[in-house]
Amino acid sequence: MTTDKKSIVVFSAHSGDFVWRAGGAIAVSAARGDDVHVICLSFGERGESQGLWKQDGMTIENVREKRLAEATAAAEILGASADFLDLGDYPLNVDDEAFNHVVDLLRRYRPDTIITHVANDPYNRDHNMAHEVLLRSRMVAQAMGHKTEDPPLGAPQVLMFEPHQPEMCNFSVDLILDITEVFDVKLKAMQCMGAQSHLIEYYTELAVRRGVQAVRNSGNSSISHAEAHARLFPVVGSDLV
Amino acid sequence: MTTDKKSIVVFSAHSGDFVWRAGGAIAVSAARGDDVHVICLSFGERGESQGLWKQDGMTIENVREKRLAEATAAAEILGASADFLDLGDYPLNVDDEAFNHVVDLLRRYRPDTIITHVANDPYNRDHNMAHEVLLRSRMVAQAMGHKTEDPPLGAPQVLMFEPHQPEMCNFSVDLILDITEVFDVKLKAMQCMGAQSHLIEYYTELAVRRGVQAVRNSGNSSISHAEAHARLFPVVGSDLV
Amino acid sequence: MTTDKKSIVVFSAHSGDFVWRAGGAIAVSAARGDDVHVICLSFGERGESQGLWKQDGMTIENVREKRLAEATAAAEILGASADFLDLGDYPLNVDDEAFNHVVDLLRRYRPDTIITHVANDPYNRDHNMAHEVLLRSRMVAQAMGHKTEDPPLGAPQVLMFEPHQPEMCNFSVDLILDITEVFDVKLKAMQCMGAQSHLIEYYTELAVRRGVQAVRNSGNSSISHAEAHARLFPVVGSDLV
Amino acid sequence: MTTDKKSIVVFSAHSGDFVWRAGGAIAVSAARGDDVHVICLSFGERGESQGLWKQDGMTIENVREKRLAEATAAAEILGASADFLDLGDYPLNVDDEAFNHVVDLLRRYRPDTIITHVANDPYNRDHNMAHEVLLRSRMVAQAMGHKTEDPPLGAPQVLMFEPHQPEMCNFSVDLILDITEVFDVKLKAMQCMGAQSHLIEYYTELAVRRGVQAVRNSGNSSISHAEAHARLFPVVGSDLV
Amino acid sequence: MTTDKKSIVVFSAHSGDFVWRAGGAIAVSAARGDDVHVICLSFGERGESQGLWKQDGMTIENVREKRLAEATAAAEILGASADFLDLGDYPLNVDDEAFNHVVDLLRRYRPDTIITHVANDPYNRDHNMAHEVLLRSRMVAQAMGHKTEDPPLGAPQVLMFEPHQPEMCNFSVDLILDITEVFDVKLKAMQCMGAQSHLIEYYTELAVRRGVQAVRNSGNSSISHAEAHARLFPVVGSDLV
Amino acid sequence: MTTDKKSIVVFSAHSGDFVWRAGGAIAVSAARGDDVHVICLSFGERGESQGLWKQDGMTIENVREKRLAEATAAAEILGASADFLDLGDYPLNVDDEAFNHVVDLLRRYRPDTIITHVANDPYNRDHNMAHEVLLRSRMVAQAMGHKTEDPPLGAPQVLMFEPHQPEMCNFSVDLILDITEVFDVKLKAMQCMGAQSHLIEYYTELAVRRGVQAVRNSGNSSISHAEAHARLFPVVGSDLV
Repeated sequence: MTTDKKSIVVFSAHSGDFVWRAGGAIAVSAARGDDVHVICLSFGERGESQGLWKQDGMTIENVREKRLAEATAAAEILGASADFLDLGDYPLNVDDEAFNHVVDLLRRYRPDTIITHVANDPYNRDHNMAHEVLLRSRMVAQAMGHKTEDPPLGAPQVLMFEPHQPEMCNFSVDLILDITEVFDVKLKAMQCMGAQSHLIEYYTELAVRRGVQAVRNSGNSSISHAEAHARLFPVVGSDLV
Repeated sequence: MTTDKKSIVVFSAHSGDFVWRAGGAIAVSAARGDDVHVICLSFGERGESQGLWKQDGMTIENVREKRLAEATAAAEILGASADFLDLGDYPLNVDDEAFNHVVDLLRRYRPDTIITHVANDPYNRDHNMAHEVLLRSRMVAQAMGHKTEDPPLGAPQVLMFEPHQPEMCNFSVDLILDITEVFDVKLKAMQCMGAQSHLIEYYTELAVRRGVQAVRNSGNSSISHAEAHARLFPVVGSDLV
Repeated sequence: MTTDKKSIVVFSAHSGDFVWRAGGAIAVSAARGDDVHVICLSFGERGESQGLWKQDGMTIENVREKRLAEATAAAEILGASADFLDLGDYPLNVDDEAFNHVVDLLRRYRPDTIITHVANDPYNRDHNMAHEVLLRSRMVAQAMGHKTEDPPLGAPQVLMFEPHQPEMCNFSVDLILDITEVFDVKLKAMQCMGAQSHLIEYYTELAVRRGVQAVRNSGNSSISHAEAHARLFPVVGSDLV
Repeated sequence: MTTDKKSIVVFSAHSGDFVWRAGGAIAVSAARGDDVHVICLSFGERGESQGLWKQDGMTIENVREKRLAEATAAAEILGASADFLDLGDYPLNVDDEAFNHVVDLLRRYRPDTIITHVANDPYNRDHNMAHEVLLRSRMVAQAMGHKTEDPPLGAPQVLMFEPHQPEMCNFSVDLILDITEVFDVKLKAMQCMGAQSHLIEYYTELAVRRGVQAVRNSGNSSISHAEAHARLFPVVGSDLV
Repeated sequence: MTTDKKSIVVFSAHSGDFVWRAGGAIAVSAARGDDVHVICLSFGERGESQGLWKQDGMTIENVREKRLAEATAAAEILGASADFLDLGDYPLNVDDEAFNHVVDLLRRYRPDTIITHVANDPYNRDHNMAHEVLLRSRMVAQAMGHKTEDPPLGAPQVLMFEPHQPEMCNFSVDLILDITEVFDVKLKAMQCMGAQSHLIEYYTELAVRRGVQAVRNSGNSSISHAEAHARLFPVVGSDLV
Repeated sequence: MTTDKKSIVVFSAHSGDFVWRAGGAIAVSAARGDDVHVICLSFGERGESQGLWKQDGMTIENVREKRLAEATAAAEILGASADFLDLGDYPLNVDDEAFNHVVDLLRRYRPDTIITHVANDPYNRDHNMAHEVLLRSRMVAQAMGHKTEDPPLGAPQVLMFEPHQPEMCNFSVDLILDITEVFDVKLKAMQCMGAQSHLIEYYTELAVRRGVQAVRNSGNSSISHAEAHARLFPVVGSDLV
């Protein structure tokens, strides 16, 4: 089954989140031939664009435009398509129309796995909102009686990528993803994110640290870089590991 | 990697636990060619042999003998080897010599995966003891300076099988193991356990219930029977599911 | 005090939930002479009517109608009255008017005990919504300054019935309710639910499994069927058990 | 750093909460020269004014007026300014305009520390709402791109005062605040709250109880009265205690 | 069933614990005709006898003697028998012989309910030890193969009384026990405990505080004093409250 | 109060733990004039000396000797005294005599703060054992009736340093300790630990990562390196932050 082409959706509150926290997962999946679709609810234009706002004469339109360009470039490098829903940030606002759009996208992409934020981040309630919207829209997309001309979604797994301060979010590590082979790709994608360039070193070091833990948990010493993810639903399978 | 032959150790407080709670996991593994080794710390002769104690004139020696015969037969049906350490039950007592024996067995079998009890079962402290002894002996077996003539153990995953009353033990379900193909084998093994025959129907129904949940979580409607397991350590790998 | 007639409200997101998960509690209460009132927020017409949607030419109006008929019949068999608020499902939508209606119903029925969903079900956010609406409306109904012509509600206990995948919802079992005497009634009620008939066997087996646990926790071997419930608030009383 | 004058914001769902639960914290801070600002989202006019509603001929306008007078007097005694947002209670309703008002107040007061309710109180969902609104508005106030003419807020600590039934709210005690020196001030402030006067003795005894725990945890036997608070974010500093 | 005479065992690490924390429960039970048996593992002679050690020339033998006299008097007032096992405190030491003695006592008293300490008290590891010994001895006493001439114990409920600092012990309140009618008895018993007399006021105020919460949770305004207890196992029954 | 000289005890299972995980805390404290005492229960000679065991002809005596030399040098650089109890590792074994020795050391050093391991590390049960021994010996050292010629210990705070895989140990971050000024000292101390030199880069990167989080939580951008610690007991004080 693992040789089949899968569909992966990355559900990102702001346009930088998918790069820093799931860039490795995207690149790994794209490299093995999966279809990866990034859905960005907002550009993080107000709350996560410090680098841009420090420039003189910056306007919200300019920030949005540059964030769109950055994220588009990063997604392309990682090997993913990207939808930008432009719903505003700080706070993120998902109204009924936007919600239905999300449901439609889940029905269209039919993901095997969805990657998104944790449920509770005290620093950033937009992240919580994205998590909640994802669970709710997944549920609607599964409903047999919703848009009955359209086949319902199956039961995609939901992974949660590592938040900035994991202990504050009760983040558990269920999957240490080996991203050694694609770390150079993730690095290039991170380098696109000019508005938050201070994070590149931070997430590189994190990848090394998770890589050391990967070695310790697997005995596989060829791993040098990794990403930590939590898993929401149980795995169904016949593999004991 | 999943095509390689693996070594599985099932670490069971009493001689019935591995049958009721991990019989499917053992049979699945044996069927794919893995080596499966059951280590029974005790026969459960005092606390888990109700069926035998209800017989007239039963003695502790007779109970032990019959439990040995039952568990030996069950292990054989499931496709596993079995070590019986005969350490006594209610309470289970693991002294230094017994502990070192367990370490030696882990070094000998070199498991990729170990299956054992949960950490906290308020009904049955022998189960907790088995969990603790396993973690402690795993640690010693990994030590480079322990019996240096002998190569240290790697970093085997630890699965915990489903306890009798899962919510009372904070049991989380991380893996719903498809045992559809081998359920007839597990059933035969359960039928060996005369001292606890009232549990056969119970664990059959549980397998059906976990099977329904497996379908719901995977969309794979060919699953009819399953076993639930929790996972102690993160999985290291490159598979997103 | 236990000989007095009590008022029980069952607060159900969809029109099937009260049957599968609290049917025994309803029948037990009705049998002892309590007034039991079911409040169904929606029919589960889109998300929980698979059996109907598989029929040719089915429309949303037809589903709603059949679900109303099924749930009305089931409530009658169980011995409860039923209010259907028809608020839509997947997602459930409780606006201010509907919320005030719920508050009015709580003031009217003046429950001693309310039975509803758990707080967090990752599979089904309508369930969470029902839980939250219940807590919020209970609070308003208790307010001395809300509709002052009307006496405020007391402090009813809130029970939460068992969700489909209890470990995924951090469900704790505080009460194993003996439903042996009324299981035949619950079975008849379940047989009304044609849109979800695949669940009858599932919930029968669950009742047996909870029954075995009831025996184990009480020593009362006459119990054959039970339902598990969690309790939100502490019990106040003078009974140590 | 502790000798600098600080700004403290107390974010209170109803107009009594800040007196009962954070009165000591306010008085301690005011006594050392800090600026303390109370923000009351509502008057608790419907749900927390039992004493007033028991009077004949009471109207909602009268309750609001008296609660305003009580809370104004209490804040003055404690040494704090007070904003009353009058958003209604049971349920509290914070619309976009009110939310933006809160963000503006946070930007204006620039707190070093914010004190508010816990995240989850099953008895009182207005409290939860206040907690959520505080976290969300803190996030927006920190956004560099929000009202760029205005400097963004820093990273104020968030304390949570003790709820009425702490174990029911998963309240942890991170800070036992010594209020011995100002307890007479808190007592005077509590005596202003005529609508809830039954609580004076209750919160006096609680202060004594927390005082005993303070002695036990510190060995400082001069403490006679204390308040318990939980802390949301880690402390950053160079003090090991 | 509640009219039957029951057997209650209170399992106390030190000779004062049962008075301060379960005195109300004992008196309530004794008043309704139950048999109540206190088992004190130690006298708390080293760690919980501050009042005595402050006296000149005090020796460990004297402390033990006085603590025995105090606790004997208190148990008599409360209406319970008492066994003093004199196992030493700080740290409490339960060897195999002592453990078997405890098992024998459980078999002899055949409790319907056991009251003991919480599982994890960071201040006092003797309390944890008592909890663990209780769970383990309960398990052995239930074993059909342990001392087969003697009928095995059933499945007694385990209540945990309120620790000194409940939030630090993750104490949940499952039962608020009305002790209004017997509070004068508990007070007299507390007055026997000369070595810890500073605690009388403390536990009186706590009883008032829990009494207020009892009223709030039940609406029964006749309750003035209460004790909080947590419950380890689910209740089995047919009562919904 | 913070200007007083304090006593700090660091309670370390193996002789490397205090360097990697609390080296910054030790150096910060020593730099401000506190007395810092390291207590090493074992040398980690079997389980945490990989670098040494890879050398030809290594014996357990040689490893112990070298570990002693390394840890002595590191403690000296950090500014702490060190006691080596040599109790053996993998598994660590603390018998009654060793336990009493620990109690004596706590009475002698009279710490204001103790730093040790977390309560539950599934990878390393020696760490758990150290945590438990610390809590138990702290309790005995506090007992008024233990060695009455000797004044009892007060109520020292217990900090827990960051374990290797924090999420696996339910590690919460309560204190982000600024170690910027002393990081060069910690680095020199880490460089003494030849047997585990692979960890130097790892813990340097971790310090940077925790430093970034310190800035984010405090707004103090002068912090470049930090250590994360959890706190076991509540802080008692009059400072709101």
